[in-house]
Order: sequence, then C-alpha cells, then structure tokens
Amino acid sequence: MELFYAPGTVALTSLIALHEADLPFKATLVDFGTTQQQSSGYLKTNPKGRVPALVCDQGTLSETPAILAYIASLVPEKNLAPSDPFAFAKFQEFNSYLASTVHVNHAHGRRGHRWANAQSSLEDMAAKVPTTMAESFALIQDYYLQGPWVMGAQYTLADGYLFKTASWLKGDGVDITTLPRIAEHYAAMKQRPAVQKALSYQ
Amino acid sequence: MELFYAPGTVALTSLIALHEADLPFKATLVDFGTTQQQSSGYLKTNPKGRVPALVCDQGTLSETPAILAYIASLVPEKNLAPSDPFAFAKFQEFNSYLASTVHVNHAHGRRGHRWANAQSSLEDMAAKVPTTMAESFALIQDYYLQGPWVMGAQYTLADGYLFKTASWLKGDGVDITTLPRIAEHYAAMKQRPAVQKALSYQ
Ligand SMILES: N[C@@H](CCC(=O)N[C@@H](CS)C(=O)NCC(=O)O)C(=O)O
Ligand SMILES: N[C@@H](CCC(=O)N[C@@H](CS)C(=O)NCC(=O)O)C(=O)O
Repeated sequence: MELFYAPGTVALTSLIALHEADLPFKATLVDFGTTQQQSSGYLKTNPKGRVPALVCDQGTLSETPAILAYIASLVPEKNLAPSDPFAFAKFQEFNSYLASTVHVNHAHGRRGHRWANAQSSLEDMAAKVPTTMAESFALIQDYYLQGPWVMGAQYTLADGYLFKTASWLKGDGVDITTLPRIAEHYAAMKQRPAVQKALSYQ
Repeated sequence: MELFYAPGTVALTSLIALHEADLPFKATLVDFGTTQQQSSGYLKTNPKGRVPALVCDQGTLSETPAILAYIASLVPEKNLAPSDPFAFAKFQEFNSYLASTVHVNHAHGRRGHRWANAQSSLEDMAAKVPTTMAESFALIQDYYLQGPWVMGAQYTLADGYLFKTASWLKGDGVDITTLPRIAEHYAAMKQRPAVQKALSYQ
C-alpha cells in the first residue's frame, strides 16, 4: 500500500493507523508548498486534490473514516475497530462527526476560500474558529470520549483521529487544559510508539 | 427502533434506508419551526441538536454514514452495503464525502451562521453555494457514480444519500439537467417504493 500524506494534515491519522496495524506501506509526500495536491499527477490518484489517499491492490481510498475502517479490517486480530455491528457504527459515528463537523470547523481558519470569497468573510470565519472548536471538543469530552480511549477500554483507530484533531486546538485558539479529559487522552497518545513513528514523517 | 427526523433534511436518507431494509420502526418528527432540535428533551437524544438520530436497543446513533452502515448490517441478506472489506470502505468513502464536503457545501446557503457572524459573510457564503455544489456533483458524476447505482450493479444505501443531496441542487442554483448521469440516477430513485414511502413523511 502507498499512503499519500502531507505533514501537519489529517493524513497523520492514517499514518498512525498503519503503524498501529503494523502493515508494510510506502509513505509519499505531497508537497503543499508547490500545490502538488492540485497537480495533474496527483489528481489522477485523488481527484479531490486532498490528502490522505491510500493506494491499495484493489484501488484507491480517500476520506479518513473509510481509510481507518479498511486498515482495521486488514488486521481483525488487533481489534483496531469494534467488531459488534452497533459498536462499529458508534466508531463510524465518531469518525464521521470529526470529518463532517470538527475538521470542517477547523478548516474555516485557513481554508475559508472554499466557501466564500471576500477577505472580510474569511476574517469573520477565522474569528469564529475558537468558538466552534471549543464547542465541538466540549461535546467530545462529555458525550463521546468514554475513557481512557474513545470507545472505552479498547484502543481503536478513532483515538488517532481524536489525537490529530486535538493537535489543532492550540493554533485554533483553544487551551487544551480547559478540557482535562481531552488533555489526558492527548498525553496518553503521545506515549504510543505508533504515534511517535507517525509524527516523525516530515 | 425510533428515527427522529425533520422534513426536507438529510434524515430522508435514513427513512429511505429503513424502508429499503423493511425493518419496523417508529418515525418521530422534530419540529424545526419551534426549534425543537434545541429543546432539552431532544438534546438528551442527540446532544448535537441535529437530525437524524436513530434510537436502538443498544443506544442512539447519529451521523448518516454510521446509521446507513448499521441498518445495512441488520439485513445482510439484502446486500444494502457491500460485504467485501475494500468495497465496503469505498461505500463509506462515498458517504463520508457527502457528509464532510457535499452536505457542508449545501449548509453554507442557509446555516452560514455556524461558521461566521456578519450578514455580509452569510451572503458571500450563500452566493458561492452554486459553484461548490456544481463542482462536487461533477466529481460525483465523473468519479463516484459507477451506474446505474453508485456502487455499480448493486443498489446500496449510498444511493438514497446521493438522491437526498441531489434533491438540494435546484434550490442551490444548479440545474440537474447539466449533470445527465446524476439526473438519470435521480429519476430511477423516484421510482423505488422505499423512496416514495420516505417522501410521504411530513
Ligand atoms: N474529508 C477528508 C478531508 C481531507 C482534507 O481536507 N485534507 C486537507 C489537509 S487536512 C487537504 O488535503 N487540503 C489540501 C487543500 O485544501 O488544498 C478526510 O477526512 O480525509
Ligand atoms: N453530519 C450529520 C449532519 C446532520 C445535520 O446537519 N442535520 C441538519 C438537517 S439537514 C440539522 O439537523 N440541522 C438543524 C440545525 O442546524 O438546527 C449527518 O450526516 O447526519
């Protein structure tokens, strides 16, 4: 498998997942500095012009929640996703909330041009990011994070996704110490060898 | 099971799914006219204050991609989601794209206050919706929609999700006839008894 990633992006979640699964893969950097994500070569891999993209024998996957579910399915003995159908749906619900709400809130800080044009709109959007991120993480802390891991006693690939989105809090103007259970999860994640390996990709 | 829905919303996708699966359920209207989605009673069901929410024996599910995967898992003999792990991941990828990009593009038309405050920003966002929706649906038509159904020969619950998001095109200033394969899919969906039943909820 080949994972296309860029440093500082949500692709870290998939890097963590591949290391937790201990699967062989090649990591290929997409250089955002030269807008390589919009190059004709990369658009053949992922026509959305985004990372991550995971090239597999059967085809190419994008969208973090789908990549996580697939990686977990390759190593069922590692229990990286719940196997009970309802618990698996809760795992997908959490990942889907991060993708459709939390990541989107964050993206309004630097990628507001996706949804508006005027400079004043982009500034207005950026100014609201601390509020929307604080609200989303309060909900995650109170409703989703069972502890010590997202799904409870069992570590799953949702934990790497929470870790990556929580890493945005500081830059988004939210003090993680105001969210003690999120901060505790974040600190526990930093101890994991798979996370340390994933963070070493530049 | 009990599905909380509101007419005209993405909850239609879950109503279609439950009818395709032919599972018994109760449909409960959440009255957006009186902002019932923010009432303390409903926030106990879904603290996000959104529809859909599906109350099951084991707990409550929200997030359309998770609800679809769960409903499909209850009736495996109906093949409402692919069973091969890679094909299932492609199904999740498509649903995740609709949730994290297409639905979000649409929401900037009427729910821009989620991400900005000034009236001028909301107008700027609303003005860009025709562009972002046209781009997303061009990508769906060229890249995702295998035909006749999203996943190819086999109808899946992703088809109801495409149908619902395509129903927004007209109000979002995109002429569906400029997207002939999406228009064909939309017309085929309208013939399905499960879709007709789901559309009858008011
Ligand atoms: N829904 C996608 C979002 C992927 C995404 O937005 N990636 C960002 C980096 S965090 C990106 O590639 N941005 C490049 C750009 O906007 O040009 C997922 O969850 O994988
Ligand atoms: N990511 C969620 C989004 C749900 C959502 O945004 N629902 C809208 C209706 S389309 C809603 O309940 N809005 C109520 C509000 O904004 O007050 C999903 O896919 O189910």
